[in-house]
Amino acid sequence: MKTIAAALLFFTAMTTQAKPVAIVIHAGAGRIDRDSFTPEHERLYHATLEQSLRAGHAILKGGGSALDAVEAATVIMEDAPVFNAGKGAVFTAEGKNELDASIMDGRALQAGAVGGVTTVKNPIRAARAVMEKSPHVLFTNRGAEKFAADNGLEMVDPKYFFTERRWKQIQTWLKQQEAKAKPRAAAEPDRHADYFSTVGCVALDAKGNIAASTSTGGMTGKRFGRIGDSPIIGAGTYADNRTAGISCTGHGEYFIRHAVAHDISARIAYKKESLAKAARDVVQTVLKQAGGSGGIIGLDAQGNVVMEFNTNAMTRGSIGPDGILKTAIFK
Amino acid sequence: MKTIAAALLFFTAMTTQAKPVAIVIHAGAGRIDRDSFTPEHERLYHATLEQSLRAGHAILKGGGSALDAVEAATVIMEDAPVFNAGKGAVFTAEGKNELDASIMDGRALQAGAVGGVTTVKNPIRAARAVMEKSPHVLFTNRGAEKFAADNGLEMVDPKYFFTERRWKQIQTWLKQQEAKAKPRAAAEPDRHADYFSTVGCVALDAKGNIAASTSTGGMTGKRFGRIGDSPIIGAGTYADNRTAGISCTGHGEYFIRHAVAHDISARIAYKKESLAKAARDVVQTVLKQAGGSGGIIGLDAQGNVVMEFNTNAMTRGSIGPDGILKTAIFK
Repeated sequence: MKTIAAALLFFTAMTTQAKPVAIVIHAGAGRIDRDSFTPEHERLYHATLEQSLRAGHAILKGGGSALDAVEAATVIMEDAPVFNAGKGAVFTAEGKNELDASIMDGRALQAGAVGGVTTVKNPIRAARAVMEKSPHVLFTNRGAEKFAADNGLEMVDPKYFFTERRWKQIQTWLKQQEAKAKPRAAAEPDRHADYFSTVGCVALDAKGNIAASTSTGGMTGKRFGRIGDSPIIGAGTYADNRTAGISCTGHGEYFIRHAVAHDISARIAYKKESLAKAARDVVQTVLKQAGGSGGIIGLDAQGNVVMEFNTNAMTRGSIGPDGILKTAIFK
Repeated sequence: MKTIAAALLFFTAMTTQAKPVAIVIHAGAGRIDRDSFTPEHERLYHATLEQSLRAGHAILKGGGSALDAVEAATVIMEDAPVFNAGKGAVFTAEGKNELDASIMDGRALQAGAVGGVTTVKNPIRAARAVMEKSPHVLFTNRGAEKFAADNGLEMVDPKYFFTERRWKQIQTWLKQQEAKAKPRAAAEPDRHADYFSTVGCVALDAKGNIAASTSTGGMTGKRFGRIGDSPIIGAGTYADNRTAGISCTGHGEYFIRHAVAHDISARIAYKKESLAKAARDVVQTVLKQAGGSGGIIGLDAQGNVVMEFNTNAMTRGSIGPDGILKTAIFK
């Protein structure tokens, strides 16, 4: 009798309740010095997160796809000069802005990515175009730009990405590099790059589809041509309807070497762990022991949201199946 | 008594026998038309495989590292015009040779990779330099070339990579593309690119360390800037002493989307599967169902060798812990 009652209850829930929709975003993780973080800056962070979440959530509530939702939410964060993606990207050691992005559709594991672009206004749109309009997954540098232009995406002068704040950051960084010029300096961990303000989004739509996206300007003072984890499917981004969608932010090299986004998915699939446990183990144990700073956001098919980080701050927000919007920066 | 005897036997085996060393290589997988494959060509394939295996194995027998062994074996296959890596790489749709490579050390999951290089004689050496001489994992295009040159690697004129055979291939491919010019032609699977002659190596040294490497010229007629799975850690290459080393060859986009190399490692770690079963399930079930052609080679800490492919041919060879050299092309 108990079984029948449970089955009936389950059936009723399936047929009468709309399936849950949910969205989660991040705009980087790292060490933020609370004293140097002005209330005005803090308000701007929260406002941008909210705008991004509401844009993605409106699409999901209207019956739109997870893919459309993550793109819309990511574009808002790319366009906001306050985050390190699109407009507002950090500068490379050579004083350039090189942008990376990736997107993945958890239905059939379709994916697209671009690396090292300098003239595509919204790299996440270029990543989606690669997924949908080419048989390939990853295009880099001028090849990626040519592909974006050929597919009608908005192209900009590299100067579009210039912001005074990031320019000051790279000038400070270059002075620090000069001051500490000594053998092997280049191979030492970069103490300045302690905030990794990549942006990313994961969404679950009413059809049960999960999509994930990541977009970044990389690390301040990164070397010309360096590609981090953001455009690497399996490292910075992964989505599989059967497990979860994941977007990462942090010291990218560690996320590549540990295949972080795919590893969380694999733990759910093969160890039958919850998203929460898999994310905690990877971020707080595996990455932490290896010395990899950063965090991840994730979402599974039941609408469970996870925001896990091993730094003192991760700029983040979500609207879960309960419809409640939350944004946060510090622990 | 049984337990004590077994323990003694184990102890004796550990102290008196040298630990196993092993090496396995591939030079691509795909469809080879037996009729068009001349005996002379076949002999050349076998001879090059043997030369590569013996070079790597000699290092392992001499107490050298798995990392040195995979580099040496891969360099021989890169230098051989017969395989699609280094000299002998296929041409892009724009008539260029763009090379990708990656290497991984299973001890502490260190990794390095380069994508889209056109002037580095041995891309695998550049991948290793990225791993050992930079804090980064992946450099692309001109940034990768500058890094290689700065680190004293042998640079060549792009013409070095020209071979008559590959040039004829791209001319044929271009004619075919022209002939079938019709809407969406670019997005259709490329019937011509049915042999993916990437090269790769996995080695196990006497200290129990595993290393893996992959190097390629990509797909004939690939678009400018396209990066396949070969330089993607987790997709084309992975090595972890606790599980296995893996190098992949095939239709790269499927290997990226399914994070093939990391997935095999994850199945061993989390499902407690053998390397053989994990490799079989991923190549014969997951990839095959998705439509992804190709194969993988792998080696675990016990010296178990796997060479799994879902095409009619994979050019491959191994020297296992028994010291016996084997090379093969067809099923």
